[in-house]
Amino acid sequence: MFKIKDSVKVSSRFTTIIHLCSFLIIIYSFTMLVPIMVGLFNRDGYITAFLLTFLLSLSIGIVGWKSTKGEDKYLQKRDGFMVACLFWLIFSAMSALPFILDSRLNMTLTDAVFEGVSGITTTGASVFSNIDTLPKSILFYRAQLNFLGGLGIIVLAVAILPFLGIGGAKLYQSEMPGPMKEEKMTPRLADTARNLWGLYSALAFACALSFKAAGMNWFDAICHSLSTVSLGGFSTHGDSLGFYNSASVELVAGVFSILAAINFALYYVALVRRSVRPILKNAEFRFFIFILSCIVGVACLELYRTQTFGLQDSLVHGFFQTVSVMTDNGLGAGGYPSWPNHVVLLLLGASFFGGCFGSTCGGIKAVRFLLLYKQSSREINNLIHPKAILTTKVNGQSVSDRVISSVWGLFFLYIFFTCVFIWGLVAIGHDIITAFGTVAACINNMGIGYGDTASGFGTLKPEGKWLMCVAMLFGRLEIFPILIIFSRAFWRY
Amino acid sequence: MFKIKDSVKVSSRFTTIIHLCSFLIIIYSFTMLVPIMVGLFNRDGYITAFLLTFLLSLSIGIVGWKSTKGEDKYLQKRDGFMVACLFWLIFSAMSALPFILDSRLNMTLTDAVFEGVSGITTTGASVFSNIDTLPKSILFYRAQLNFLGGLGIIVLAVAILPFLGIGGAKLYQSEMPGPMKEEKMTPRLADTARNLWGLYSALAFACALSFKAAGMNWFDAICHSLSTVSLGGFSTHGDSLGFYNSASVELVAGVFSILAAINFALYYVALVRRSVRPILKNAEFRFFIFILSCIVGVACLELYRTQTFGLQDSLVHGFFQTVSVMTDNGLGAGGYPSWPNHVVLLLLGASFFGGCFGSTCGGIKAVRFLLLYKQSSREINNLIHPKAILTTKVNGQSVSDRVISSVWGLFFLYIFFTCVFIWGLVAIGHDIITAFGTVAACINNMGIGYGDTASGFGTLKPEGKWLMCVAMLFGRLEIFPILIIFSRAFWRY
Ligand SMILES: [K+]
Ligand SMILES: [K+]
Repeated sequence: MFKIKDSVKVSSRFTTIIHLCSFLIIIYSFTMLVPIMVGLFNRDGYITAFLLTFLLSLSIGIVGWKSTKGEDKYLQKRDGFMVACLFWLIFSAMSALPFILDSRLNMTLTDAVFEGVSGITTTGASVFSNIDTLPKSILFYRAQLNFLGGLGIIVLAVAILPFLGIGGAKLYQSEMPGPMKEEKMTPRLADTARNLWGLYSALAFACALSFKAAGMNWFDAICHSLSTVSLGGFSTHGDSLGFYNSASVELVAGVFSILAAINFALYYVALVRRSVRPILKNAEFRFFIFILSCIVGVACLELYRTQTFGLQDSLVHGFFQTVSVMTDNGLGAGGYPSWPNHVVLLLLGASFFGGCFGSTCGGIKAVRFLLLYKQSSREINNLIHPKAILTTKVNGQSVSDRVISSVWGLFFLYIFFTCVFIWGLVAIGHDIITAFGTVAACINNMGIGYGDTASGFGTLKPEGKWLMCVAMLFGRLEIFPILIIFSRAFWRY
Repeated sequence: MFKIKDSVKVSSRFTTIIHLCSFLIIIYSFTMLVPIMVGLFNRDGYITAFLLTFLLSLSIGIVGWKSTKGEDKYLQKRDGFMVACLFWLIFSAMSALPFILDSRLNMTLTDAVFEGVSGITTTGASVFSNIDTLPKSILFYRAQLNFLGGLGIIVLAVAILPFLGIGGAKLYQSEMPGPMKEEKMTPRLADTARNLWGLYSALAFACALSFKAAGMNWFDAICHSLSTVSLGGFSTHGDSLGFYNSASVELVAGVFSILAAINFALYYVALVRRSVRPILKNAEFRFFIFILSCIVGVACLELYRTQTFGLQDSLVHGFFQTVSVMTDNGLGAGGYPSWPNHVVLLLLGASFFGGCFGSTCGGIKAVRFLLLYKQSSREINNLIHPKAILTTKVNGQSVSDRVISSVWGLFFLYIFFTCVFIWGLVAIGHDIITAFGTVAACINNMGIGYGDTASGFGTLKPEGKWLMCVAMLFGRLEIFPILIIFSRAFWRY
């Protein structure tokens, strides 16, 4: 897999990376046991695909782990880019396995990979047109993919990204709770996973109980809670939450989407200090809530004004769907894609905004827009007072030029690749509206399409599906790691 | 017009600005004599509208000039924002006058203002559906609007903007020819206008001769040369250059569009030094030509591959139309809006790129994309080598962080307002494709619509026309001056 030419030092670094990944693959293989149990419990009658995936990944993991033993060294910072890229590539491939192996689904390789990538990156875009009739084990597996992908995102975002500095993520170094400040990567990964795993599961537990209380059956409540706290958006129904036609279900989903879109490091700090002040005082959180409120307000108002719904439905659907799209959760209700164009467009725009850094949301993320807004205001003041030296502050601390330029770079590349992906889908033969809606759904890991993909992504052409797999990975990895892996400078190092 | 409260100092600055604007209005009023002569020569039989405009603007100019006499002081740098905003507002209003006053045209105020703003900002978007039957004086007046607007752009861009520093325009300070380095604004304006006026007219003269040689009649050749060197794009025919169905006409238009999209300060330097090296060695020029060649190449290839045209037509239309849209000229041929979606989308994307700074093109401009590209590469290298101190160089000189942050700010606001304008048109009731194509045409001062506006902007709703007037002015003023004028900090100063 890796041609190692340069030096022993490089080779030993790669070996360590493979060692780490093998370990994660072993852990991951055991998660296949859960859908197996769900299948047995519900008498699905067919668990071979999961069993095969379990055995296959366990073997690969053990072989990889054994063959690289004794080489376990601390990784260096820059290895994080490789770890992040490999993490998503390997787990995308493995996620697709049960879909490929399950003969009942009769999926093409393309569809299986798309569904797998979509699940593990918490995009939640689905190629299935018959979701309601899928076996329970598969439905649970899809929700579990979202959940595990979400955990991976949080651990990576909190443990690794701040130290790599992608898109100004260094901003968050100061917020890291004690043990996470550790400089070495492997112990930090383990510590973070241990600390946040509990929090994340507790949120899912609370969400499941709330969904049950709102009227779902236990199976649906658990599956939807897994895909809600991960902001993944896979549903057990083709109509997503529209299936229930219930205001309380939508309100629960909306509230937990907001909770899941908050930086998990803040929850940790709040727990340690036994106070919600660290959350409420956080500049990104406040900015996110402010923008969210504005967009929810406009959406509700416009739904009512255009007589799309009556007053109560405008408020409920407007709140839930805006939150779901903006946090890039992607559960749907109220026939969203057929809403007035300008409301849909507003929500699609909001999906680029996303939620807070260190959560499982997609998009560019609130803290970066906060910084871009502050920088633009500063620029205006600078033009008026050319001799003034103005600094940009977030959370009371001035932000270094390096962090700012990193955020600008990410913004530019995000827009640039969004345009490239849209153009790619149009060149393949999709119409412009479908292309825009689909790319917004995929690069932001949001998951609700528009135009031809409004009711599912099975309508995409095969080349389009592969392109959108790339878009989902670009969005999830925040672009830079992929460009870095493909840059000459990285390999010369 | 101006409530002056703060101090005598502020009042005297505004008086000076009004004095300057009045002077420009007097000069401008005399340009109305040319369409009058065209009308008389062609026996249009009706020149009242131009005569009225002449007398009205001359009177206003003289009154303004006389009443502010004796207050003539040198303006300060920050007054440049006010001068730039007033310049375009006043001349937009005056440009609309003949359209309003000419009873033959029977235009609404909205349509007249749209046509005037479109002409003077060199956008070239037209609400007329009967261009071929318009009186010659009106046709000539539209071309002249483009030409005068273009001259205004060049003078402002070369004389004022570099000293205001909008969007990194300070980059060009070092390229200013000698007399323009003068720090005081009024003499610099006059000098620049004197130096560049000749160059600009010579280019138009050469362009008119070439169009004549390519087969146009004298009237069409002159009108199209005026709208080509200004990258304005008003045509004397409803089908624009498609009317001639002539490869040589399109080649002439393409070549002169490229020549007009080069920084006019470079021409000046080249003339003074009697060498084309200053142009050929210029980093922005090289980047512009490189990107232009790539896009022309893809467009020609795709037109041929999709069998839209045969080989020769693919090359001719592909070259001309790509150049025309990318430089934001906006003359059309070959039925461009009905080309394959992905080719149209590529060209619409290119219209955001534009040409070189210091020319009459629209869009974000090549030098800024060059900088964004270099910054993004630097960011990747920075992530790989976190301790390296890397600088960004353009034309062999390192670019200051202030200039870079100014360019990022402009890019962000440009994208942001593009989204706002698109959303506005959709909220008014236009479809998303029309909204995107129309905003690209207006904010980039490009002038060819798409969707419902493909064959003219008369189909826009009245609110949409006013919104697009704002978009044209936002694009032409590069956003910052308008935001600054509306900022509290500016008025507190
Ligand atoms: K999602
Ligand atoms: K134009």
